[in-house]
Amino acid sequence: MTKKRVFITGIDGYIGWPLANYLVEKGYVVSGIDNYLRRESVCRGVGSDSLFPISSPETRSKIIHYDKVSTMDYEGLEYAIKHFQPDAIIHLGEQPSAPFSMRSRDECYHTLEWNILGTINLLWIMKKHCPDAHLVKLGSMSIYGATDQLIPESGKPYPYDPPSFYHISKAADSMNTRKCAEWWGIRATDVHQGVVYGHVYDTRFDYDQCFGTVLNRFITQALAGHPLTVYGKGGQSRGFIHLQNSIECLELAVKNPAAPGEYRVFNQLTEQFPIMDVAKLVAAETGAKIEHIENPRIENENHRYKIVYEALLKLGLKPILMKDILGQTIEKVEPFKQNIKQEVIMPTASWR
Amino acid sequence: MTKKRVFITGIDGYIGWPLANYLVEKGYVVSGIDNYLRRESVCRGVGSDSLFPISSPETRSKIIHYDKVSTMDYEGLEYAIKHFQPDAIIHLGEQPSAPFSMRSRDECYHTLEWNILGTINLLWIMKKHCPDAHLVKLGSMSIYGATDQLIPESGKPYPYDPPSFYHISKAADSMNTRKCAEWWGIRATDVHQGVVYGHVYDTRFDYDQCFGTVLNRFITQALAGHPLTVYGKGGQSRGFIHLQNSIECLELAVKNPAAPGEYRVFNQLTEQFPIMDVAKLVAAETGAKIEHIENPRIENENHRYKIVYEALLKLGLKPILMKDILGQTIEKVEPFKQNIKQEVIMPTASWR
Repeated sequence: MTKKRVFITGIDGYIGWPLANYLVEKGYVVSGIDNYLRRESVCRGVGSDSLFPISSPETRSKIIHYDKVSTMDYEGLEYAIKHFQPDAIIHLGEQPSAPFSMRSRDECYHTLEWNILGTINLLWIMKKHCPDAHLVKLGSMSIYGATDQLIPESGKPYPYDPPSFYHISKAADSMNTRKCAEWWGIRATDVHQGVVYGHVYDTRFDYDQCFGTVLNRFITQALAGHPLTVYGKGGQSRGFIHLQNSIECLELAVKNPAAPGEYRVFNQLTEQFPIMDVAKLVAAETGAKIEHIENPRIENENHRYKIVYEALLKLGLKPILMKDILGQTIEKVEPFKQNIKQEVIMPTASWR
Repeated sequence: MTKKRVFITGIDGYIGWPLANYLVEKGYVVSGIDNYLRRESVCRGVGSDSLFPISSPETRSKIIHYDKVSTMDYEGLEYAIKHFQPDAIIHLGEQPSAPFSMRSRDECYHTLEWNILGTINLLWIMKKHCPDAHLVKLGSMSIYGATDQLIPESGKPYPYDPPSFYHISKAADSMNTRKCAEWWGIRATDVHQGVVYGHVYDTRFDYDQCFGTVLNRFITQALAGHPLTVYGKGGQSRGFIHLQNSIECLELAVKNPAAPGEYRVFNQLTEQFPIMDVAKLVAAETGAKIEHIENPRIENENHRYKIVYEALLKLGLKPILMKDILGQTIEKVEPFKQNIKQEVIMPTASWR
């Protein structure tokens, strides 16, 4: 049997790099692109970098070949995809931070620009060069906002109430993808992901206010002897998924492709709970104090989702639970605690 | 009483120019910007121009001062708005054609770019320089697609099913506007407009497949001795509004501003019927034949909207009906029939 060919945008990122390695282990042929946004400009802009040292692009691309190309570079992206001829494209190459998108006009503008126009570039290239390939696109679970209604696992239109400019860009991406499936017959899976946490392979580990996700931030704060910074009351819920599960889900989607013209949504989370519960979990494990700070976001601070997430479990996903993985994640992070920069811990980006 | 100051983006356009003149007559102080997209590149790209001769920008801007600036030029737009200090901004400066957005990658890309990023530029400028001004933004009635559900006249989230890339750009604009009202306290009215038709003042009159709207196209076809080109069965409905009513609605919105932080939606149409009924109306008046041609769009060809449109009627709008205005519109267009270019009548842009 010929090996399936998978092209990953954002292959150098937090999810992209371990995903690429996992797929190679599973027998896929893997390539991709990355523009090193996180390595170069963006992290410096927020004053932080990966807590773990990560290999250089030169070293990494000797292991799995990929090129420095942005999704905004239509010709470069077209060249890479045309020559690789993928069976599936996993699209992770977007600006992934809600707080980053709210920081200033410039960051808002670029989030909308990079995410929406980069994704439409990709869709046009697929139409032209690999119309039968399967697009697996990383979406966000939160584009519907803090609704009290049941969130189905369905590709049908559902009311958007995006809680940041980042989420608006993701909602626009989802619309573009859905309609290109309908108009052009593209196969598409939109993975509506919850908050990803943890560390696998030799991926990066961010803990700043923009690119660090909440559990990773709390672990880092605890190790730095800083109180855990809960925004407001802490009753706001999030869906969560461990990084290992996240990459397994993406492989499951590739292994079980959408039909031509089909636009599927997978709600990709394994648990949901309020931010306060995450803080309590870390506090119990580490003895850290919890501090309620002014919420820089505008959000409902007392909310639980009603959300269907069955598709990935049916395909065989075995959930990793936060309480079970927390101890070993802390052990993995601890040796790097001397790298922690205190000054990037507190939020400065405001929704107001 | 000080005169209200109204700034119009797209002031040189089909709606913009008569609106500006109407507002001046009503006692407003008016200025604005336009990038002459329709005059310069775009119309030539589709092989057409206004059927009516229109005055040059130099002549027009002696009557009402405005500058050649694009909404994509942040600094230029900022300068104009900062110095004018508007009480209201009427935002018409977008690429307004669904078929144009579907023609090719380039036009799809630019529609998303110009409309979404131009609007976000405007919102950030309002936040900075006139946070208490009222944004009246031209939206589209069709962003919800051919739904069978009742479309309310409400700013609450409602499922989007945009029938073109153009409509996706408008849905993204609506999300950005709604959330900026919520986060920053902007006053916003989103005018979800139906298809505008007719001719007032000395505005342009387009009849090509991209920028000509259906009644204007049918009138031109009839005068050119061409059959009326109904796409597919013709059972697809549209909401309609005469250009005079459209500009009256925009003035009503300005006169009755939204509250700080309020995001209102006005459904701006006065009638709705299937395309076939529009063709029959023109055929009855002119003796033209009706020809069903292959539908370049992907759409439900047998559909009626259930749509609430009460807000503007409550504010005093007196509907002009298509059947009552048709005769005098034809009389107005007829003297220019020697300008009609047959080659731009048939559609070439396809959704597939």
